[in-house]
Amino acid sequence: MTLAESVLKGDRLTLARLLTQVENLTAEGRAALAALFPHSGRAHLIGVTGAPGTGKSTLVNRLALNFRAQNKRVAIVAVDPSSPFTGGAVLGDRVRMRDLSGDPGVFIRSMASRGSLGGLARSTAGVVQVFDAAGYEIVLIETVGAGQGEVDIARLAHTTLVVEAPGLGDDIQAIKAGILEIADILVVNKADRPGVENTEKALKSMLELAHPTQRIYSHHGALIPAPLPGTEGNAVMEKENLWIPPIQRTVSTEGQGISELADQIVKHAEFLRSSGTWTARDQARLASELELTLQQTLMDQFRARESETRYNEILQQVFKRSLSPWEAVAILTKAYDRLNVSDREDPHSGGEK
Amino acid sequence: MTLAESVLKGDRLTLARLLTQVENLTAEGRAALAALFPHSGRAHLIGVTGAPGTGKSTLVNRLALNFRAQNKRVAIVAVDPSSPFTGGAVLGDRVRMRDLSGDPGVFIRSMASRGSLGGLARSTAGVVQVFDAAGYEIVLIETVGAGQGEVDIARLAHTTLVVEAPGLGDDIQAIKAGILEIADILVVNKADRPGVENTEKALKSMLELAHPTQRIYSHHGALIPAPLPGTEGNAVMEKENLWIPPIQRTVSTEGQGISELADQIVKHAEFLRSSGTWTARDQARLASELELTLQQTLMDQFRARESETRYNEILQQVFKRSLSPWEAVAILTKAYDRLNVSDREDPHSGGEK
Repeated sequence: MTLAESVLKGDRLTLARLLTQVENLTAEGRAALAALFPHSGRAHLIGVTGAPGTGKSTLVNRLALNFRAQNKRVAIVAVDPSSPFTGGAVLGDRVRMRDLSGDPGVFIRSMASRGSLGGLARSTAGVVQVFDAAGYEIVLIETVGAGQGEVDIARLAHTTLVVEAPGLGDDIQAIKAGILEIADILVVNKADRPGVENTEKALKSMLELAHPTQRIYSHHGALIPAPLPGTEGNAVMEKENLWIPPIQRTVSTEGQGISELADQIVKHAEFLRSSGTWTARDQARLASELELTLQQTLMDQFRARESETRYNEILQQVFKRSLSPWEAVAILTKAYDRLNVSDREDPHSGGEK
Repeated sequence: MTLAESVLKGDRLTLARLLTQVENLTAEGRAALAALFPHSGRAHLIGVTGAPGTGKSTLVNRLALNFRAQNKRVAIVAVDPSSPFTGGAVLGDRVRMRDLSGDPGVFIRSMASRGSLGGLARSTAGVVQVFDAAGYEIVLIETVGAGQGEVDIARLAHTTLVVEAPGLGDDIQAIKAGILEIADILVVNKADRPGVENTEKALKSMLELAHPTQRIYSHHGALIPAPLPGTEGNAVMEKENLWIPPIQRTVSTEGQGISELADQIVKHAEFLRSSGTWTARDQARLASELELTLQQTLMDQFRARESETRYNEILQQVFKRSLSPWEAVAILTKAYDRLNVSDREDPHSGGEK
């Protein structure tokens, strides 16, 4: 039985082993990914991002418990791109394990950044795909929201939650402008803290900038979703196929606001499906995956046919500034074209000479 | 006279026009870049990054004035990756123009993110190269330090300044761990504000994590550089070829600490040259530029020979999950290989049949 077959049968140990293969981008991992691919595409992928200190891990933990109570299988992918020198996992796996360990319907996987963030985004995509194929209906992807790399990881998701908390300083908001744009649902966690009104107000004014023609609806402590059916706002939403990111308050240590948040997530999935956005997001993701893979393969093929010595000779000329990088590439790629041409002018043929 | 020739002669209007071509990555811009390339490699490229609110723009302004007083030609590249919806330039060009406008030894260029951050990094690299070739000895590259893209831009530089300011919240530090790693000089701007000791202490403890075997030396309000000559710390530095990022306090609105900071920058350039790191950084940058250009050219060549219809047919099969992205790439690239093979089995040749 192949790795992929065992995983499809629900073997947890094989799943863990395969995830390591996929994370390390081994040939075995890649083969299993290809075999599992036809079985993927059913899970609801939920990204959860936010600055350190917003309580993301506890929130993800609570959400997982909530989905488990609805009998859904849940995978958690905790991506920790903390830099090597800060060391130590930002994400407290042990804390969350207390509530979730021993439940066969939950699988938790931590991923650390060992190389580039781009590499992390690629291997995270693979890990998420494995969980999807293995029948996990909910995949929660948790990242520290700081940079472009995390935004790329969040883009894997159908639904992206951006988590805020009161008292993290005003500039946090300014920094996260780019991340706010990808938010489908905004969560104000630690909502029992002072300053929660200010945080919510700041988020609302940013949302108004992002959706200038829409009014943002807010509701204290409970759901702040799309407006009630039949109201003016809802009509606009239905007409224009718009999703206005709701702002949801939670106190995840107490479990407050979690079931409302889970409702919002389900509502977003329904919106995605009814508006066709679900398919569009899936296809955009697959198209860019195809393009990236193609790009890498073309480079690999180039390396296989080009001698390393020659490449380095040309690189040395760039270092001496006797060739610009553009001229160097023209030489490297034309050389290959010329090689093909001379191949075609086969000395054995002679007929056209 | 070509664009490149006019720029080398010091024509400011042509320079402005060329920068636009380079920023938009036009064919004309690319040709000029190639022509200018042999003249580049002399400027000291200085990256300045930091969160909004740290006073980077004023600091850069002051540094430029300081280098002008030393009769160096100065270019400022202000990169503003603020997201479309926040709108408005974060970087106040008008403010800085007051002191620097009319000085023919200064050229200021603002760049906005219109597409991806990756694209911005590429066009910034081109703009910096033009200034370098045009004889600007100091190129200050100012970015808002938030994400991976900004880190990539900062990596263009020989010397990277990371700017902090008191009172921006504790979490700022946690977020910027990745950016701190690339800092050659740490600046605590707005050092007349309360909380400056805490900010400096936080930076120092992060530096100690980053350089565990080194002690970080600090000196109130003035330079906090490598230790004095002859001391134990300096011996270690010289032996191990280490640069310990100094922490410099400034009040850039008042001009305080600016000349000390400029001294640190010059000292860092001397360290880079004496340790061989200057050449190493230049070569690493050129090597990655060559690789990126090659990668793009290979994709362009692939697109030119592969029919779009066929590519889309295969993409549709990926969407239906009847082909995985890896299988799709294998088909797309093997098809080309096979095409070459059949080209070589020229029907006219017959000799080997």
